[in-house]
Amino acid sequence: MDAIDKVLWNTRLHYLGMAARTTEPVLKLAVLTCMDARVDVSGLLGLRPGDAHVIRNAGGRVTDDVLRSLLISQAILSTREIMLIHHTDCALGRMTQAQLAERITAATGQFVTEDLGTFSDPIQSIVQDIERLKEAPRLANRDKIRGFMYDLQANNLKEIVA
Amino acid sequence: MDAIDKVLWNTRLHYLGMAARTTEPVLKLAVLTCMDARVDVSGLLGLRPGDAHVIRNAGGRVTDDVLRSLLISQAILSTREIMLIHHTDCALGRMTQAQLAERITAATGQFVTEDLGTFSDPIQSIVQDIERLKEAPRLANRDKIRGFMYDLQANNLKEIVA
Repeated sequence: MDAIDKVLWNTRLHYLGMAARTTEPVLKLAVLTCMDARVDVSGLLGLRPGDAHVIRNAGGRVTDDVLRSLLISQAILSTREIMLIHHTDCALGRMTQAQLAERITAATGQFVTEDLGTFSDPIQSIVQDIERLKEAPRLANRDKIRGFMYDLQANNLKEIVA
Repeated sequence: MDAIDKVLWNTRLHYLGMAARTTEPVLKLAVLTCMDARVDVSGLLGLRPGDAHVIRNAGGRVTDDVLRSLLISQAILSTREIMLIHHTDCALGRMTQAQLAERITAATGQFVTEDLGTFSDPIQSIVQDIERLKEAPRLANRDKIRGFMYDLQANNLKEIVA
């Protein structure tokens, strides 16, 4: 059975309830984090349906697409805070751009020229992404942007202050 | 109390356990969906920590950043299936690019020129995004890409076949 069929079967148990009616996030919060399968955002942060926007990509990096999403989140859907969460043991921190590109070429035969979002210093990647957010003029609300490192082994969040 | 402080307090209740050690998603699945606060991905699909990559942006649209994430997901972290989920009552389907840009300018004073990812036909947006994925040569595994509409009111997923 394909994975998609398995998770489709699980949907029969889900109940969204009243939350289905709330368009604007109750906590006025947008969370940006990594796509990593071990990052269980709602479990970790205790988010219920309707609470917060959740934006995820490889690394939880601030890209043009993330800024597009946050722009809409703040200007149209009234969020005011941004919580950035990177995590330990991230694939983008274990390899350099060159190593990652080489692995991708080996797997697909395709050459990679764009920035893959790798970083050598995990703390610095958080500091850099917070700065990118704070310097984005299209984001109306930039006074409550905070960054965290999620330690998967210790299972805790540590705030990173630039 | 800020929302970030509230959710930080919740992290004390979370336990990741064995899942902390599994880098490659157990289901070899990547899910792409919208950042919308009402889309509780793990609750809806019954995903446990470690099961699947989850990529989210405004609309669950296939952008360059999404392709970057999926490229890494497949070539480095061995996922094989892609599940695309859009939902009813999406802000990007309720407004045109011009209306959304106008609202953003009114809120921030900033002009918007880039594509915000709006769509007029929700079903067509899924068909279009599936096509974009299937036509992406850098994705090694394109035989199991399926798209769904998540009806927030009825609380079910309906498969969309092109």
